[in-house]
Amino acid sequence: MIDLTLVGIGTGNPQHLTLQAVEALNGLELILIPNKGAGKDDLAGLRRDICKRVIKSPGPAIVEFDLPQRDPATPSYRQRVDDWHDAIAEVWQKTIDQHLPRGGKVGFLVWGDPSLYDSTMRIAARLQARTEVSLRVIPGITSIQALTASHAIPLNEIGDPVTITTGRQLREAGWPDSADTLVIMLDGDCSFQSIDPEGVQIWWAAYAGMENEISLSGALHEAGDEIIKVRAKARAEHGWIMDIYILRRPARR
Amino acid sequence: MIDLTLVGIGTGNPQHLTLQAVEALNGLELILIPNKGAGKDDLAGLRRDICKRVIKSPGPAIVEFDLPQRDPATPSYRQRVDDWHDAIAEVWQKTIDQHLPRGGKVGFLVWGDPSLYDSTMRIAARLQARTEVSLRVIPGITSIQALTASHAIPLNEIGDPVTITTGRQLREAGWPDSADTLVIMLDGDCSFQSIDPEGVQIWWAAYAGMENEISLSGALHEAGDEIIKVRAKARAEHGWIMDIYILRRPARR
Repeated sequence: MIDLTLVGIGTGNPQHLTLQAVEALNGLELILIPNKGAGKDDLAGLRRDICKRVIKSPGPAIVEFDLPQRDPATPSYRQRVDDWHDAIAEVWQKTIDQHLPRGGKVGFLVWGDPSLYDSTMRIAARLQARTEVSLRVIPGITSIQALTASHAIPLNEIGDPVTITTGRQLREAGWPDSADTLVIMLDGDCSFQSIDPEGVQIWWAAYAGMENEISLSGALHEAGDEIIKVRAKARAEHGWIMDIYILRRPARR
Repeated sequence: MIDLTLVGIGTGNPQHLTLQAVEALNGLELILIPNKGAGKDDLAGLRRDICKRVIKSPGPAIVEFDLPQRDPATPSYRQRVDDWHDAIAEVWQKTIDQHLPRGGKVGFLVWGDPSLYDSTMRIAARLQARTEVSLRVIPGITSIQALTASHAIPLNEIGDPVTITTGRQLREAGWPDSADTLVIMLDGDCSFQSIDPEGVQIWWAAYAGMENEISLSGALHEAGDEIIKVRAKARAEHGWIMDIYILRRPARR
């Protein structure tokens, strides 16, 4: 029996950890940290750093494992993701079997919150199909909240809806009718370039919540070009980037 | 000069506080706690309890103030809310002047996260129009995350959008085209009754994240009636209720 805890850690600021997350991490026997390979990003390093700061000795064993790669030969995006999640679940199971052969309390540090554009819970479901797993989720600060905190702005207009979506959706489906406020995540392509900027405001942040946070805002037709430049520069400097933004247009309803 | 910090405290579980929130609270000179009147809800009590748990002596002064009421005679919802926010900003200013006549570090404990369907940031903007205020926001766990953690479910389908909206919007505008997953907040009327339940799943929680959390899920056509009953009973028992739910329909795109 595996007692699996997914711990939301917030967006890279170790101070984003909740008291509940600190308690949960200290109660584990094994913490697994995915390693995407040196230089690709510093998320494994960040997770190690968080463990060092908040876990009291002796604490759980901390084990890194190599993440399998997605197969670019699989044409369907969904199928590619499905296959990849299966492969990761297999690595999880092997690593847990190796370090906790009789089962026990295993945990992952999940960037942001485990519910939002994160695959850990889906991989956990695949592990549940392979072996007996009880699943517990500890919520964490999302990059949406790190973004709104950075700009000190409300997410929604009073009583109005907000749509959270991806760069891909914005490019392919345009601005959805249902909301005048959008949160755009998972956007490697500055997809705000695909919409008519007339009247649209943008609030953007990279590394939101972290020490090297960069935030920019303004009318999209002015701020957009600057964001593209600043983003490219920051990505080149750090070797990776994680960014997010809010778009708001005048109310249409 | 008022140095104003809005501290997201999560959804009623004192363990939802982040390390950053604990540090911010301890760095304040004055904490203001709105009092809605005995018996209306126990949020003031919860805020006092959180302060007791995490603030080290001597710590900031903790002062309660009476929230003004909304004027039901104002016909427009927006105008009613605007007027109310102005009245609250006035009470804030008077209370701060009384306890910190030379200005200083003032903070509020904000339920959930200050960005999401919360008026504190809008009232802060009104205070900024009256006097010099620097504003800092500390993000907190939202009820959306407490809900998804309670059910251990992802918020979004892979790469798909999510619309966060209100019970009123769902009743008046129906299911928006833009997303097959909805988060419904601020719904005192079980507004899921207004939509066609065919194929729709619901994940509901009241007091999400708290000790007395109740969560129910299932096909809307079956679970809906039970939620209405359980909600009415819980509200009668506690004297107040705070609930939230996710609706998901089969993908249409």
